[in-house]
Amino acid sequence: MTTVSIIGKGTMGNAIAKVVADGGNTAELLGREDAGKPLAGDVVVLAVPYPAVADVIAAHREHLAGKVVVDITNPLNFETFDSLTVPADSSAAAQIAAELPDARVLKAFNTTFGATLAAGTVGPLTTAVLIAGDDEDAKATLAGVVEAGGLRTVDAGSLRRARELEALGFLQITLAAREQVSWTGGFGVVA
Amino acid sequence: MTTVSIIGKGTMGNAIAKVVADGGNTAELLGREDAGKPLAGDVVVLAVPYPAVADVIAAHREHLAGKVVVDITNPLNFETFDSLTVPADSSAAAQIAAELPDARVLKAFNTTFGATLAAGTVGPLTTAVLIAGDDEDAKATLAGVVEAGGLRTVDAGSLRRARELEALGFLQITLAAREQVSWTGGFGVVA
Repeated sequence: MTTVSIIGKGTMGNAIAKVVADGGNTAELLGREDAGKPLAGDVVVLAVPYPAVADVIAAHREHLAGKVVVDITNPLNFETFDSLTVPADSSAAAQIAAELPDARVLKAFNTTFGATLAAGTVGPLTTAVLIAGDDEDAKATLAGVVEAGGLRTVDAGSLRRARELEALGFLQITLAAREQVSWTGGFGVVA
Repeated sequence: MTTVSIIGKGTMGNAIAKVVADGGNTAELLGREDAGKPLAGDVVVLAVPYPAVADVIAAHREHLAGKVVVDITNPLNFETFDSLTVPADSSAAAQIAAELPDARVLKAFNTTFGATLAAGTVGPLTTAVLIAGDDEDAKATLAGVVEAGGLRTVDAGSLRRARELEALGFLQITLAAREQVSWTGGFGVVA
């Protein structure tokens, strides 16, 4: 039984909480009002937009040491929709990992729209959550929670692959914004 | 009726030739022995590995002006399998476009394995070819050829999106190399 603390009560936070609960694990959903509160979970999902991550880290830093911290962000420039806001040779996940040297940072959930997480399917395929990170135990813990919730997982490799996951998330959002795919569709993974 | 000249007789070149022919269009397949030969196609596919592109351009430069030139490459560092060989803020397609200012350069076919191009399906989905480029007419011409061949196309936006398509192609190759997906699977697109 794993407890997952999810910081952020938006579409993604709620969808991830549903996956956790569907698998018989425990989701703790926290909002801004919970700043500084101890976190019940060994896994902590930062389910907020990238510009809000710094504040969340500041509010919870002392409780994040030793935890599996999951970055789900797509750091788009929402003014231009034409680039990411992190350096081209880095990633949001790498920047968060640098901020939290005592945490085990994973990238996950940024390539699945909230609707496909909640539904468990993307078209005819089971929704697949791609997970990147440098700590194999942390990846296995998160994968266990996601698979218990009825989804597939794909081990995307080391945290360096977060850059490609963020490119994929960025591309997918631009495709939806340009109506090339719907917000209930997007990329699926065929084994 | 569109004629497509495909430079490169490997797996990808042959799979793309099949798609062209399946759609009732004409494929001209060329190899190294055809250096300097005039190209019959208005569309020219550079179906060679990225390190061979410079030689192909040198061999055919005078015949590429005005053509729709399609870059299909994934410029991986095949020694480390951990990065691309183009600058992080650029793409192979951008570099080829800079080399060929009189051509209309598109990025396409780099996110579909040869097997899924040849089969027309990836799992339960019709194979989708993502096409990025700055010339709408060029994109429409290539999309027409691909769709006539029974595949889907997705307009991935401007040639700047080649960077994300190359990240996606890179990620997909690493997933196959690490046996997270098979070489007959990979990413599919759900509308």
